[in-house]
Amino acid sequence: MSPPRGRFIAFEGGEGAGKSTQARLLAEALRARGLTVVVTREPGGTPGAEAIRNLLLAPPREGWPAQAEALLFAAARADHVAHLIRPALMRGEWVICDRFVDSSRAYQGGAGGIGDAAITALHAFGSDGLRPDRVILLEGDEGALAGRIASRGEASDAIEGRSAEYHRAVAAAFGALAEADPHGFVRIDAIGAPQDIHAHILAAVGDLLE
Amino acid sequence: MSPPRGRFIAFEGGEGAGKSTQARLLAEALRARGLTVVVTREPGGTPGAEAIRNLLLAPPREGWPAQAEALLFAAARADHVAHLIRPALMRGEWVICDRFVDSSRAYQGGAGGIGDAAITALHAFGSDGLRPDRVILLEGDEGALAGRIASRGEASDAIEGRSAEYHRAVAAAFGALAEADPHGFVRIDAIGAPQDIHAHILAAVGDLLE
Repeated sequence: MSPPRGRFIAFEGGEGAGKSTQARLLAEALRARGLTVVVTREPGGTPGAEAIRNLLLAPPREGWPAQAEALLFAAARADHVAHLIRPALMRGEWVICDRFVDSSRAYQGGAGGIGDAAITALHAFGSDGLRPDRVILLEGDEGALAGRIASRGEASDAIEGRSAEYHRAVAAAFGALAEADPHGFVRIDAIGAPQDIHAHILAAVGDLLE
Repeated sequence: MSPPRGRFIAFEGGEGAGKSTQARLLAEALRARGLTVVVTREPGGTPGAEAIRNLLLAPPREGWPAQAEALLFAAARADHVAHLIRPALMRGEWVICDRFVDSSRAYQGGAGGIGDAAITALHAFGSDGLRPDRVILLEGDEGALAGRIASRGEASDAIEGRSAEYHRAVAAAFGALAEADPHGFVRIDAIGAPQDIHAHILAAVGDLLE
């Protein structure tokens, strides 16, 4: 008998929302319950997808055309899903991913002007349209999140370095996706103590633990 | 007044068919007529597309899933079309490309099992469906072409190294594409002296010179 399929949780939101911290805290909590958990991220997560990530975050001098960028994200995701996410889910493991297709929908589809239908079609082709069992959308006041990014002291990459207007459009697009799918998305306030936010997230996936 | 749009010629066919030799001979003949000609190739042709080419020809250890491979080819083509092919055509130049979308249709779409509709949809998204004005399909007996490849003494890449059965399926797919579009494709026998083949090709694009 094959094991029951694992659960797939994606963390989404803008830069500085605490996605990677919260992904780690959730993984620790699930492991404490005896579950096997894979923590991964996009773009990347497999050797092939990480190679594509390098092309995306350090584009050629002329930049990628918007369509090429969307195709590269879909290619990286296809490799990640085929070689890491689906095999783990089939083994009955939990997969926690820092960004998934809804980032493509918000960044390239919404803010980037490619449109949601095109991003969804690329995902249907590349990854058979795999959806997370739950999307945790971390949302916070723009100024507060910008302060967190600045405090990291890291150089920004090709996407982080885009305009404030672009990042506002991303946040609006994420909000619209969550409104359109209230069962799939849980919106969580990203401003506060990490342990408090973690408690909200744990509650938001409680039904998947049963 | 903008110059008249240039002409776009693609060379297609299996490995060893003489595409790059014939592309060069055609470019020389067109330049001798006073035309400005860009000779390029796929996958590649621009810095971004060449970086993607490197990922395609030296895949990760697990290999690319077929869908990821098709998305990478479409991404490379989108960059190539946006940054090199369309600008040259808009300047009134001729573009001669060693492989274009019909290679994706024959290799990934036909022999690889992805299907022509999916490849065509990716091309519509990535490159607005740009078609060559003429496709020169170089066809030859499998054994003769294999002998040419062997005589080059080069190590084969990830696609050249596939089975003879795969390459037969590619040749059949190219033939079917040409049959379905007898105006767009010209089928040329690739076995013979390069200058004789060149003469056939020059005749096959004669109407585009008028």
